Amino acid sequence: MSKPLKIALVQTEVLPGCPRDNADNIIRLMSEAKDKAAELVIFSEMAVPGYLLGDTWESAAFLADCLTQNERIIAATKELGIAVMFGSVAVDPDRRNNDGRLRKYNAFFTAADGALVAPADAPYPFTIKTLLPNYREFDDSRYFFSLRKLAYELNRQPEELLYPLSITLNGEDYLIGRLICEDGWGDDYDFQVADALVNNCYKKYGKAPDIFINISASPFTLGKNQKRHRVFGENSRRHNIPLIYVNHTGIQNNGKTIYTFDGSSTVYDRSGAILAASAPYEEEILYAEYSKSSGEIVAVNRMQPAADTAACESESIYRSLSYGIKHFLQSTGISKVVIGISGGIDSAVTAALYAAVLPPENLLLINMPSRFNSATTKDLARQLADAVGCRYAVAPIEESVELTVQQINSTPICFKGDTAVFTVSDFVRENIQARDRSARVLAGFAAAFGGAFTCNANKAELTVGYSTLYGDQAGFLCALADLWKYQVYDLARYLNREVFHREIVPQGTIDIVPSAELSDAQDVDAGKGDPIIYPYHDYLFRSFIERWDKATPADLLRWYEEDTIDSELGCEAGLTRRLFPTPDKFTEDLERWWKCFSGLGIAKRIQAPPVLAVSRRAYGFDHRESQNGVYFTTEYIERKNKLLSAEYN
Amino acid sequence: MSKPLKIALVQTEVLPGCPRDNADNIIRLMSEAKDKAAELVIFSEMAVPGYLLGDTWESAAFLADCLTQNERIIAATKELGIAVMFGSVAVDPDRRNNDGRLRKYNAFFTAADGALVAPADAPYPFTIKTLLPNYREFDDSRYFFSLRKLAYELNRQPEELLYPLSITLNGEDYLIGRLICEDGWGDDYDFQVADALVNNCYKKYGKAPDIFINISASPFTLGKNQKRHRVFGENSRRHNIPLIYVNHTGIQNNGKTIYTFDGSSTVYDRSGAILAASAPYEEEILYAEYSKSSGEIVAVNRMQPAADTAACESESIYRSLSYGIKHFLQSTGISKVVIGISGGIDSAVTAALYAAVLPPENLLLINMPSRFNSATTKDLARQLADAVGCRYAVAPIEESVELTVQQINSTPICFKGDTAVFTVSDFVRENIQARDRSARVLAGFAAAFGGAFTCNANKAELTVGYSTLYGDQAGFLCALADLWKYQVYDLARYLNREVFHREIVPQGTIDIVPSAELSDAQDVDAGKGDPIIYPYHDYLFRSFIERWDKATPADLLRWYEEDTIDSELGCEAGLTRRLFPTPDKFTEDLERWWKCFSGLGIAKRIQAPPVLAVSRRAYGFDHRESQNGVYFTTEYIERKNKLLSAEYN
Repeated sequence: MSKPLKIALVQTEVLPGCPRDNADNIIRLMSEAKDKAAELVIFSEMAVPGYLLGDTWESAAFLADCLTQNERIIAATKELGIAVMFGSVAVDPDRRNNDGRLRKYNAFFTAADGALVAPADAPYPFTIKTLLPNYREFDDSRYFFSLRKLAYELNRQPEELLYPLSITLNGEDYLIGRLICEDGWGDDYDFQVADALVNNCYKKYGKAPDIFINISASPFTLGKNQKRHRVFGENSRRHNIPLIYVNHTGIQNNGKTIYTFDGSSTVYDRSGAILAASAPYEEEILYAEYSKSSGEIVAVNRMQPAADTAACESESIYRSLSYGIKHFLQSTGISKVVIGISGGIDSAVTAALYAAVLPPENLLLINMPSRFNSATTKDLARQLADAVGCRYAVAPIEESVELTVQQINSTPICFKGDTAVFTVSDFVRENIQARDRSARVLAGFAAAFGGAFTCNANKAELTVGYSTLYGDQAGFLCALADLWKYQVYDLARYLNREVFHREIVPQGTIDIVPSAELSDAQDVDAGKGDPIIYPYHDYLFRSFIERWDKATPADLLRWYEEDTIDSELGCEAGLTRRLFPTPDKFTEDLERWWKCFSGLGIAKRIQAPPVLAVSRRAYGFDHRESQNGVYFTTEYIERKNKLLSAEYN
Repeated sequence: MSKPLKIALVQTEVLPGCPRDNADNIIRLMSEAKDKAAELVIFSEMAVPGYLLGDTWESAAFLADCLTQNERIIAATKELGIAVMFGSVAVDPDRRNNDGRLRKYNAFFTAADGALVAPADAPYPFTIKTLLPNYREFDDSRYFFSLRKLAYELNRQPEELLYPLSITLNGEDYLIGRLICEDGWGDDYDFQVADALVNNCYKKYGKAPDIFINISASPFTLGKNQKRHRVFGENSRRHNIPLIYVNHTGIQNNGKTIYTFDGSSTVYDRSGAILAASAPYEEEILYAEYSKSSGEIVAVNRMQPAADTAACESESIYRSLSYGIKHFLQSTGISKVVIGISGGIDSAVTAALYAAVLPPENLLLINMPSRFNSATTKDLARQLADAVGCRYAVAPIEESVELTVQQINSTPICFKGDTAVFTVSDFVRENIQARDRSARVLAGFAAAFGGAFTCNANKAELTVGYSTLYGDQAGFLCALADLWKYQVYDLARYLNREVFHREIVPQGTIDIVPSAELSDAQDVDAGKGDPIIYPYHDYLFRSFIERWDKATPADLLRWYEEDTIDSELGCEAGLTRRLFPTPDKFTEDLERWWKCFSGLGIAKRIQAPPVLAVSRRAYGFDHRESQNGVYFTTEYIERKNKLLSAEYN
């Protein structure tokens, strides 16, 4: 019986847009794997260039640099004596994409002994991603030519171009089914890449592949690892073939939306069970031994907890956010951070998250009271700062706000020889306060500190634009922007219980009514606060954006009518009817927030800071928006008219 | 000889995301065309839903509403007794897109006598867009299933599915080649839709189509109409078939990037010459009569100037920007505008543009001097306001800036029982001034006025982030964001000469050195100003973004070495070597701005206001960016090292 093949699954950070640095790292890790006697080392999809690069993909000079780095890695297989598989961009200088630019493929390279290894009859010495995701944050088909289009060009069927790889390692021949990320998720496509690979392998070699290898650049999303285990496990079980999945760590972004990559590289045996998985977000090499004779992975260097073993949603969220914050600070070169803290929950949780990744001397919390801020919240802000143990200041805004109000109220506005003055209303004063805090105090202190200041908004606020532009919506990063208010509260409790093991977010902050404290109408001591009723609106707003079929007013009103709305939204049973006992009250509330969501909310999101994505639909590039004003469908209008006229007849 | 067919080309405004309003408008215009004895009326691509809708395309309720409106239009053909062609979305409820969502097509509907008209053997009673643009601002393949993919699904070749339409109008049979926008621009694709339509028409009917009809949703871009005339004219000439092109007016956006649609609907005769064209941005119906016997358009109701007859680039730019501003104000419901004017060129041109579309009582100009602002620029600001004749105010910022500086310099920062204070540097003071002007004064006055305030940044500033976040980069719209500084100057002269016929932008503003006046180092009276040398940097920055193959430091250094840089950039001959006589000076400047462009510039653009696009590459959704830090390719580093070591050896 032959010796098993020792395979190294490298889970490492990819720096998007930095091919030379990534190639340096890959070659270093190839050497490390060789030292551990691995014969084959596997890196992730787009391990050389990175994946979410925007239109940098159009730069010929950048592509040339990637090809140079690919060559260095291929050459290293000879120098080091180890075979490699890695994802990178491939370019065909003789062909063009449909946009007239250089032909680019999202490619899976296999190299040994200084050269690429490929089936003799393949059109290229690498394999090409077949299924190009073009939804959510993905833009693959903007940049890459798919195997399907290539097949058309060559007058072939795409299935024909899915070549299993035959490679000889240590004197033994292995048949390998190579998949790139989406190629393993074919449910919604009209053919399955793995099935075609198996069929072609039988046709050519009279047997199935020994193993599937899926290299991915797969961003973290809540619940995605569990789904992957189902889909990939089922694939192994159906074909009776083990599967190795290699994903990378690090963060990548599309400008507005920042993704963490949790790695969670996994070895599935041929029954579809998880044999081993790398810890999420950890840089590490996992070793797996494949036995040709048994057709199975016979050993892994250790059993790691699977990626979906987070005890609760808050643990997954905390891992992702703290990793994302830390790496975004590194990538932007920001080492000092200022956070405005109000005594409320969002700023407290933001402060706790940064406290977990920054040394206390590099973190400055500032409380900025006006006449409307209660002693209660001012005390809570100080309690938080004491618990965090970082720098702390109190910078009142009353004098500056008064100066602004007076200046506006007294500046002569000249027109056709006459002069007049404006009068600042209470509402205008509210927004002056919000901008004074962020654009004047936080931005000024951050600049003097040599750092940046955060935005503390949550997803409910962002959904309906319940924040002030250049005010509380400003900041270099919005870490909580993909969390509903209830998730912020859960995270607060998790931080106290599991991360800090003490009350870092004051219990008073968790208990108090959420309020912007911008007027007497928002007096927390009188139990008054935000107009958003979070136990209901969190779920209503979530249905606008995170449901698979996004809910519109027509759907919501139908559910209200049918009395299925609580279960459809996922809020507490009976809550909707309790809050809105009649259709007119329900539609009034619904229309108010739908207008905010699809009106001014979009205008504000266009200028919002980058958001850290954790949900199945985050704002920014994941959920693309046009500022087209508010629309109610004919179905909604008719349903509403019928319902309201029934009510009053 | 039979009577010619009277065709109405309707160029009308499409309201994106408002299918009911668009259908109302379409039915009204069908009736108008019928009154003028037209037998066929043609509307643009996506005339019912609009085109740039972002992920609203994912909403099943919105799609259902579109289908309802499609049906209304089809029914109207019977009521009104006129045939119609229009673009809209089509849905196949039995099939799915590759993202698992409803199958959607970008479709060309033809209807008469209350029913759709289609070839009997076609898979659907409408024709499907074949070439789906997926570059620049376009995301077609994110939402729509292409004819190519459908062909795969049906085990057919895409060419086979391109059916010429046979339709009987007034007792005469016509063969029509239907094209949707990109289908007429096939240069970069592997087959030409028009060619396939002609071939299929010969196969089935033994002759060529009588006419091509291209319905489009084609945003304005400088120079695009000229290119279309070449491409579409050549298509008519090659096939000896006339072509009718119908595009709509209005504005649409992808959030960050706003496009004007100039219409410029055109009738090409079979020699490819322009027979008639609608005036750009005008809502109108053009009538053309097609004679079956002569195979040619024999009459048009009038000869309009072709869309490319703008006397100069500034005229095209002015048309687009003034139209864009006016319609963006309408669509967002903003009727009052505040503009901060410094005495400099950008704010003056912005003020003149708004003055052209707003009544003077709804426009407020505010000059906001600090101690660094010269009497010269303060006088120029007043001159501008006098010339515009709108509301005007002077709101000094010195007192507020001083309050902020003092507050930062005196607020105790507590840490581990000690306290310290920050010291505001000159640079920090500069940015405090910029934020004070926008986030405090302009935002406050705009709110008190009941309006919004503008961002006046130009494309050179936006490219390198030469602006302050929440300061001069803030505003509800950045109208000049797609213009280089030289285009802003050209536009100033054009506004004075051709629009206002008097000196609305003061000559002194055109003559003075551009300066932010944020410190003594930017004293305009001493001829000191911005660090950007516009006659060179305008062209350098343009090469980063607008060149087909975007220039990178490696390209630029090569051109410098080969002494072709001035012609490559398009700047004045000899300028680069005069400014940067040695490679070290050249690379120092290049690296400084490349770092700004690909570093902090991106961070600032993520939070920038929407921009009005006019160039072949605008910031925002047209040029997609990831915030990945600064990268220099290996080729650049090696080239630079070689060149600099040669210099010093």
